[in-house]
Amino acid sequence: MRVSDLSEAELIARIQSRLQPPPDWLLVGIGDDAAVVAPARGRLEVLTVDALVEGIHFDRAVMPPDAIGHRALAVNLSDLAAMGATPRLALLSLGLPEGLSCGEFDGIVGGLAALAARHRIHVIGGNLTRSPGPLLVDVTVTGTVKPRCVLTRAGARPGDEVYVTGTLGAAGAGLRMLRETPAPNQHASPACIQRFCYPEPRVRVGELLGRNRAATACMDLSDGLADGVHQIARASGVGIEIDADVLPIEAAARAWYAAAGQDPIVGSVTAGDDYELIFTCRPKGKRRLRAARLREGPVLTRIGVCTSRPGVFLTRAAQGGPLAEPMPIGYSHFLASN
Amino acid sequence: MRVSDLSEAELIARIQSRLQPPPDWLLVGIGDDAAVVAPARGRLEVLTVDALVEGIHFDRAVMPPDAIGHRALAVNLSDLAAMGATPRLALLSLGLPEGLSCGEFDGIVGGLAALAARHRIHVIGGNLTRSPGPLLVDVTVTGTVKPRCVLTRAGARPGDEVYVTGTLGAAGAGLRMLRETPAPNQHASPACIQRFCYPEPRVRVGELLGRNRAATACMDLSDGLADGVHQIARASGVGIEIDADVLPIEAAARAWYAAAGQDPIVGSVTAGDDYELIFTCRPKGKRRLRAARLREGPVLTRIGVCTSRPGVFLTRAAQGGPLAEPMPIGYSHFLASN
Repeated sequence: MRVSDLSEAELIARIQSRLQPPPDWLLVGIGDDAAVVAPARGRLEVLTVDALVEGIHFDRAVMPPDAIGHRALAVNLSDLAAMGATPRLALLSLGLPEGLSCGEFDGIVGGLAALAARHRIHVIGGNLTRSPGPLLVDVTVTGTVKPRCVLTRAGARPGDEVYVTGTLGAAGAGLRMLRETPAPNQHASPACIQRFCYPEPRVRVGELLGRNRAATACMDLSDGLADGVHQIARASGVGIEIDADVLPIEAAARAWYAAAGQDPIVGSVTAGDDYELIFTCRPKGKRRLRAARLREGPVLTRIGVCTSRPGVFLTRAAQGGPLAEPMPIGYSHFLASN
Repeated sequence: MRVSDLSEAELIARIQSRLQPPPDWLLVGIGDDAAVVAPARGRLEVLTVDALVEGIHFDRAVMPPDAIGHRALAVNLSDLAAMGATPRLALLSLGLPEGLSCGEFDGIVGGLAALAARHRIHVIGGNLTRSPGPLLVDVTVTGTVKPRCVLTRAGARPGDEVYVTGTLGAAGAGLRMLRETPAPNQHASPACIQRFCYPEPRVRVGELLGRNRAATACMDLSDGLADGVHQIARASGVGIEIDADVLPIEAAARAWYAAAGQDPIVGSVTAGDDYELIFTCRPKGKRRLRAARLREGPVLTRIGVCTSRPGVFLTRAAQGGPLAEPMPIGYSHFLASN
């Protein structure tokens, strides 16, 4: 059965059947002209939207439906995490191509609903339309944050240390593994593909960094580490030096880039799709940072330092002392052809 | 110049140059991972999203760029109006096809920004992506409403009178005039086409109906009067009788349908795209309704009554007394081929 065999009301019912029971702050939910929500007391609201378009951000031939739904929500939750916010609600806008099967539809909604349930966020409404071409998944999310706990890109100062969560490069390599079939080398790794398909937004780390006032600046690495470092440097008015030798490049990504004849560090820092956080801390803020560390969360790695000297550099150990090269410009998801 | 010749940052700058200065409640705007907003004191939040997809909702060959932008925001503002809410902010998610010119881009953004300025709402963020096919304009808006002033579809009771704002049928006829070229009859009317391209959301009427507690139920007529009547009847658990002879059908639409050999009343009540409000009032609530009337707003027309007898009927004067026929099912924007 295809989605075009069902009415809009039937499709909405299929979505609702996959959602958790509505929270008490939802006063009017799906089914009226708009949703009505009681605001969270004493908190600011944080809002973001991100669209996934078939043929640009994913390919239905190689990406499972639940991964499409998971990813569409995850990229938004990652943006909230980067602000120190606790996610609260989502609006789901879908553009459905004629031939989409009900199984694919259910898979997309199921992947999104499963991640939503894990983060206790509720889908309060949305929009369904047909699409004459690509599948479209556009998700708006809002979250809340206490006024003094907002993390922006603009607070880093010279001397602040630069940290990153988790590992780098796996998702970007995973995307290439998915696209380059037959694989150009034998290092295709299910783990990298998994990281691309099911990114894990660092929601809890972001909340704790904000709540403990441990970070002076923060953003997510949706467009890669190189882009993140440039953005924080520009927004904060500092320089940044990154130590290439301590970057937590995922081993499978390192192997893939090396086998493809590319520098694994340049490849990993310029690839997008790492939904890790980059953040900066005062050097005396170690106690706060320890408070923000999770018992079962991702590893936090110190990768560099903010400088009063402008410019963004990647430093590598070399014979005769470290060499600093300008940080590559990074991934531009709008102009790039991938 | 085409949008694909510009970077994402350059396109964002083009959008920002068309926006009003940011309001004081916007604490972090465009340029960070997400926007941060101070909530409005003592008010509930109202949220909605609506997507316009090229080839489904509009055709770039016949619709001016500024109308695309205007419409994308207007359809959302109409949803807020139907809840009694005051619009506050918008998030703009655009999917841009390769060949889109910068002039078209500016036109779309300009049309949206002009309507936003008139309603004092601010575009606080969004998303830009390429599209492999159609132009996509997905807009999320939020508004605020006092807790006791929310209008839903569910409050109508038997005996309540049914009202509609403005006139009906013009936009639906205008869409057909745009599509059916060469025109099948000589009654194509610039006024109907204008109503389709630049719908005027009834924001002020909705606010006043909510604030004066004048309406027991309300929704907008995006899918036409027939759909609206069915929805309110179902949500409120009442029957509704509509008097076909008093329906404020736009004269140009009436002429168009008649010349096309169709019943103008059935044509007008089943066509979508009327962004008028339908609402119900207690028969003793005339004073409240008068308070909600605008000096320079749209005409309000009493078109029927809610009944305890279930069913939705369209009554017409006939020899030997009025005849009641079942209200047509109306426009289904998801399954319909238009």
